[in-house]
Amino acid sequence: MQHTETVEIRGHLIDSGTFARILDDVLEYSGDYRIDQLDVGRTHTDESYVKLTIGSDDHEQLERIIMRLQTHGANMIDPGRATLRPAPRDGVFPEDFYSTTNLETRIRLDAGWMRVANPEMDCGIVVDDEGARTIPVADIREGEMVVCGANGIKVTPLRAPVRTDPNEATFEFMSSDVSSEKPQALLVRQVAQRMRDVKAAGKKILWVGGPAIVHTGAAPALVALVEDGYVDVLFAGNALATHDIESALFGTSLGVDLDKGHGVPHGHEHHIRAINRIRACGSIAEAVSQGVLRSGVMHSLVRHDKEFVLVGSVRDDGPLPDVYTDVIEGQRAMRNALKDVGFAIMVATMLHSIATGNMLPASIPLVSVDINPATVTKLADRGSAQATGVITDIGLFCEQLAAELVVGYKRD
Amino acid sequence: MQHTETVEIRGHLIDSGTFARILDDVLEYSGDYRIDQLDVGRTHTDESYVKLTIGSDDHEQLERIIMRLQTHGANMIDPGRATLRPAPRDGVFPEDFYSTTNLETRIRLDAGWMRVANPEMDCGIVVDDEGARTIPVADIREGEMVVCGANGIKVTPLRAPVRTDPNEATFEFMSSDVSSEKPQALLVRQVAQRMRDVKAAGKKILWVGGPAIVHTGAAPALVALVEDGYVDVLFAGNALATHDIESALFGTSLGVDLDKGHGVPHGHEHHIRAINRIRACGSIAEAVSQGVLRSGVMHSLVRHDKEFVLVGSVRDDGPLPDVYTDVIEGQRAMRNALKDVGFAIMVATMLHSIATGNMLPASIPLVSVDINPATVTKLADRGSAQATGVITDIGLFCEQLAAELVVGYKRD
Amino acid sequence: MQHTETVEIRGHLIDSGTFARILDDVLEYSGDYRIDQLDVGRTHTDESYVKLTIGSDDHEQLERIIMRLQTHGANMIDPGRATLRPAPRDGVFPEDFYSTTNLETRIRLDAGWMRVANPEMDCGIVVDDEGARTIPVADIREGEMVVCGANGIKVTPLRAPVRTDPNEATFEFMSSDVSSEKPQALLVRQVAQRMRDVKAAGKKILWVGGPAIVHTGAAPALVALVEDGYVDVLFAGNALATHDIESALFGTSLGVDLDKGHGVPHGHEHHIRAINRIRACGSIAEAVSQGVLRSGVMHSLVRHDKEFVLVGSVRDDGPLPDVYTDVIEGQRAMRNALKDVGFAIMVATMLHSIATGNMLPASIPLVSVDINPATVTKLADRGSAQATGVITDIGLFCEQLAAELVVGYKRD
Amino acid sequence: MQHTETVEIRGHLIDSGTFARILDDVLEYSGDYRIDQLDVGRTHTDESYVKLTIGSDDHEQLERIIMRLQTHGANMIDPGRATLRPAPRDGVFPEDFYSTTNLETRIRLDAGWMRVANPEMDCGIVVDDEGARTIPVADIREGEMVVCGANGIKVTPLRAPVRTDPNEATFEFMSSDVSSEKPQALLVRQVAQRMRDVKAAGKKILWVGGPAIVHTGAAPALVALVEDGYVDVLFAGNALATHDIESALFGTSLGVDLDKGHGVPHGHEHHIRAINRIRACGSIAEAVSQGVLRSGVMHSLVRHDKEFVLVGSVRDDGPLPDVYTDVIEGQRAMRNALKDVGFAIMVATMLHSIATGNMLPASIPLVSVDINPATVTKLADRGSAQATGVITDIGLFCEQLAAELVVGYKRD
Repeated sequence: MQHTETVEIRGHLIDSGTFARILDDVLEYSGDYRIDQLDVGRTHTDESYVKLTIGSDDHEQLERIIMRLQTHGANMIDPGRATLRPAPRDGVFPEDFYSTTNLETRIRLDAGWMRVANPEMDCGIVVDDEGARTIPVADIREGEMVVCGANGIKVTPLRAPVRTDPNEATFEFMSSDVSSEKPQALLVRQVAQRMRDVKAAGKKILWVGGPAIVHTGAAPALVALVEDGYVDVLFAGNALATHDIESALFGTSLGVDLDKGHGVPHGHEHHIRAINRIRACGSIAEAVSQGVLRSGVMHSLVRHDKEFVLVGSVRDDGPLPDVYTDVIEGQRAMRNALKDVGFAIMVATMLHSIATGNMLPASIPLVSVDINPATVTKLADRGSAQATGVITDIGLFCEQLAAELVVGYKRD
Repeated sequence: MQHTETVEIRGHLIDSGTFARILDDVLEYSGDYRIDQLDVGRTHTDESYVKLTIGSDDHEQLERIIMRLQTHGANMIDPGRATLRPAPRDGVFPEDFYSTTNLETRIRLDAGWMRVANPEMDCGIVVDDEGARTIPVADIREGEMVVCGANGIKVTPLRAPVRTDPNEATFEFMSSDVSSEKPQALLVRQVAQRMRDVKAAGKKILWVGGPAIVHTGAAPALVALVEDGYVDVLFAGNALATHDIESALFGTSLGVDLDKGHGVPHGHEHHIRAINRIRACGSIAEAVSQGVLRSGVMHSLVRHDKEFVLVGSVRDDGPLPDVYTDVIEGQRAMRNALKDVGFAIMVATMLHSIATGNMLPASIPLVSVDINPATVTKLADRGSAQATGVITDIGLFCEQLAAELVVGYKRD
Repeated sequence: MQHTETVEIRGHLIDSGTFARILDDVLEYSGDYRIDQLDVGRTHTDESYVKLTIGSDDHEQLERIIMRLQTHGANMIDPGRATLRPAPRDGVFPEDFYSTTNLETRIRLDAGWMRVANPEMDCGIVVDDEGARTIPVADIREGEMVVCGANGIKVTPLRAPVRTDPNEATFEFMSSDVSSEKPQALLVRQVAQRMRDVKAAGKKILWVGGPAIVHTGAAPALVALVEDGYVDVLFAGNALATHDIESALFGTSLGVDLDKGHGVPHGHEHHIRAINRIRACGSIAEAVSQGVLRSGVMHSLVRHDKEFVLVGSVRDDGPLPDVYTDVIEGQRAMRNALKDVGFAIMVATMLHSIATGNMLPASIPLVSVDINPATVTKLADRGSAQATGVITDIGLFCEQLAAELVVGYKRD
Repeated sequence: MQHTETVEIRGHLIDSGTFARILDDVLEYSGDYRIDQLDVGRTHTDESYVKLTIGSDDHEQLERIIMRLQTHGANMIDPGRATLRPAPRDGVFPEDFYSTTNLETRIRLDAGWMRVANPEMDCGIVVDDEGARTIPVADIREGEMVVCGANGIKVTPLRAPVRTDPNEATFEFMSSDVSSEKPQALLVRQVAQRMRDVKAAGKKILWVGGPAIVHTGAAPALVALVEDGYVDVLFAGNALATHDIESALFGTSLGVDLDKGHGVPHGHEHHIRAINRIRACGSIAEAVSQGVLRSGVMHSLVRHDKEFVLVGSVRDDGPLPDVYTDVIEGQRAMRNALKDVGFAIMVATMLHSIATGNMLPASIPLVSVDINPATVTKLADRGSAQATGVITDIGLFCEQLAAELVVGYKRD
């Protein structure tokens, strides 16, 4: 092992499994390690400290390992200073750019340490007169200065909640696994309490939703939650908005007659007619103000001045006039809407959940609710470690959440 | 086509798809058909009538086709008389025995038509001084007279509910397909209404349940339903009863601490200890009367004198002393408990749902509730055509069902 | 029923279930029917003929029913002439536009019947000097003449394959249902035969693929199929191309080290670095010609001058420079690439499968292959009735398909 | 914490996550811990050593924690001697019986340490003149001496395979997770290699199979594997054997016509007729010797004198005469057949996989193959930590496994 670097980390390393993952990652990246120091907390409330020397035969590989360990909160003992290199072209980073985590990050330049704004994974870090901030590769411009290599960077790991009282219930009801075999009524109450806390703290609640919200009959519950202030921002695609509007205009949603509970199979023309009618109005807000759209989730968001960002996909019909058809522009609009968000709930959508998970800092807790375990698992697999999952029925979940949060909520 | 036979059928053949299935089955069984007469109802409330000549090169094959068409309610124009042959050995039918449907069936002997008691699919029909009844192959005794071939038999198809008013909601909320994308709150109300109707008609409600009832926190809801009289009979395995009792004795269920919502991973010893403790008492009822078992679903069933049949499986630990370890004996006990059942609800169990579906007459409606679509689909595939499925979360479903049916139900 | 219209249809109506679906749809759309004439083929090779009078209290509702029945191939006896109205604005159809099916369609103007080019569902029909063609709502320009109402339109139903010999195996191995419980080796052979037939007829094979092609190790098989001419066009998203290129450049794909079979968990930086490197080259083709990209599926497509259309989604990192970030532009590129396609195979992608299914005419057969039954089911539910599904493992499926089609194919 | 006990453990505790799980379990069981000594291996090939003091307010709770930690291989520093108490009744353990793990276990009586025969989880340990052995609760007889409490017991943890060369591929291809997104062709080769190794070592291969083996067309591959000696023992239920025999007698399996690939829906009577015919013969072996059964998996097992254990379930029709209808007797037969088994492969059956997993010692590696991820996950959740899972298509998996192992294997 010709190349070595020493890293350190402090925290609840043993019982959280962090230490095991660090050692595992070093081997997976074809490196090796030597444990230089290990001070273990003697009881479960004490923090531990580890100092590790990492070795690799290849300098570039070593840099990759160091970057990798930073995702667990391990930093170099002597990080040195950050290297800056200009972007060679619009939309292209320097070859050895530092790829970001979604953790709090600082970089050291000559002037000392500075905080990197907007932690987001898989980005670069650009530095200019206004400071350092993450930037997606599509948005970098030729000549902007980008942090390269692993030097001069420190990340702050998420502080895992310490269970001081083993009998205390924490919010991390699913930290260890994802399962449909959980006491669901309790989960609903925990999510409701978290929402109350977030509102009390003056933060926003972000919902990310798929069309099953409408199909499962959850729209009235979601409307009640909008009206009571528990939905500040909605991220969705063309489908949720279209089915909601189709339901408002025609009483159907892709073939499900919601009042009677039996389907109108392949009632496609309602779907495309609903889109056409809103396109004729010019926008969803215009359709509301013209009296064309008089109920449903989108109507309620417009009426209560709540923000929504609809981003299109290749399978869209239409789409609705409010939909971003360029997905990169859509991502920018989503990033702009994340300000002050303190909690994210993702319901019945794999595509938009992963998209949102990709851009959320690790410090914002998120709950993913889906009847399909794969959605929740994929979200966690892709690096949204703060994600907790609830495998349940969307319709009944939203119904009970509204009953918990909205005084007097009772669906007719 | 050397061998032919003429069959007829009357009913809602076209819009129900029955006619298409009959023609399809003839071809699938390598036969052929000629439509001799087709009187189609002119409007959707009129019944249709079809007379078909079925042909096959092989007499045995033709008999099979005739038997097959009987599952759709098509009978021979001239059925002749039933052939009886003695069973050659205990537990063995004659080679060409008539394999039953789960429809109302009559046979014609010299004395005229007689009703076959206990319609159940995949059985034989035994005839003795007391009349004709279905019998599973395991229960036939050497020398008993068994109906053979397809002659002398008439089945009565289920009368499909006629939708006289196209706007009317019927109970068949899922007649055409199985989906999690349905308005779930409405489905709960429909099931609740059906239960009230069944009780009002003086019939029993059969529950078939799996252990997820306990894992998802649905047990308190089920207890409330037992106490209010909405659970007359419970079919289950060792697992549901064990987890329920484990939860009552230790507050855990296979690693899920139900009050706190986080798991005790692999808390196996609680599970086997719970079983041991009930074995020490001698039975669940003894455990209740000795004050060992003081809460939960099984406790509630014992207290309210409700019947339960627990049948074991190869993966059981223990089992509990009340469990039938011989599955054929268990099936007999289940059959005995079906008397006066007017409605069956199957929750979160594929094994016991299919077992029960196999023995229920087609005339008893059943609802299958599971978060896993495969359970519902398999039930329907195996011939329980009267099954309607609800893909939803068990915990929230039972919670809302109790809230709908039990006055003042509110879980703490 | 104040408003009535008479429709007729000829074909295999009974055994295909088409007649039952027509009657069902009339009731679902709150209409009513009277069967005026029904000539049933006496044997299973004869076609049937039905004449129906449809009634509704509402003229607009009646028009919807007529349009709906056209999706089954039922046309008005006296269709009259098509009504044309100008589009009121760019991207907006007239309110009562005719919403298309994906079937062969003709319209009657004063000059007689003309064929509508490019059958595609959920579009409008625009008429100009060059004739009539389908057009998506986003592409209509103000003042263009659009067919409105249901008059003057005839669709030609797909001719269901007649099973003249009941023992003959047809390609529709899954016409009736979707199941993982099928003899899979046989299915592979049927798909292979179909591909040979399509190539022999001078048509193109379209592949639509998801990233699991790479994760499951199927890429070498797909490369062999490209090289032997069984992949003419590929539709995919950013993910498939990125994972394929990441695998070529770094030997990993989102954390799966393909040679060793154990994962590099969350190896995200490889993923974003691969994208950055191709962005630096300018395009995938440039990366191939510069010698940066030397293996994999994308490399092989470039080398053999095969067409690919990559369309982005909101969850994309990067994306690769070849990706359409505007989904409507992406759809246009896909439509342009459909010319001469005679068969479509969709592998492991729900999003792009549905997108492609939406725009394919019903006359092009398609096979959907996925380990997840929901993908196949959703495709069929959304109107791609010609879809046949294979629930299987992608990796082994592609491996066996290559072994079947490519002489000497043997993976190392 | 009034009650304390000191435990120790040596091994790869950190990178395996074992240490983290130990600490986690102590807290989950409402205990507390103090780390007295921690000697960490400095490099990844060194073992670590931990000495922990465990505390609890309740003596019984402390005993439970100690037993729990033994499942991870942690033993008391001073275990003392085992307590023996007589079973109070047939089929009942003493209240505080020691509940076993599936690890190598020794107990200390006055005469020193002795090995416990037949490690199996969730059993008791009975001691008599012949030594100590595990015993299921159903088999204990009144007065037999059973180990109680946690004293006098040592378990030996599984030695986790040390990855000495980080580039080396190990058999644990799925040690960290379960996924369908793996290079499947590689997995097949790894399983094949393991089977060759097991045979070379003179051990037996146990197959546990479900009926999907027949439905997916995998039976010919399995027959080839039987004939080449890669199937020594088969555990299954009534369904696999019935569908295999139905296929041999009638060419169908529950409605799937295997040669043509299209289904005979609900061909139930074939199923029950097949059972009846074998019942008439007396047994499967008799049916083979009488020439009634001439092909298929069961035929091949009989012909090659391989052992099979069929255990019934409540949903069985019939059953076949060879089926154990008493599940406890069936379990005994399975235990007897485990002698000399060195490897277990479980294909497409959740019920029998879990049953077998429950009784296998942890030292016997097992692979679970299923298209349904839940089967594999449940197996691991229930304590079969040595389980590795392959999510794939059964039909193609068996086909490729036979192609890999059986020279000249080529399905027609």
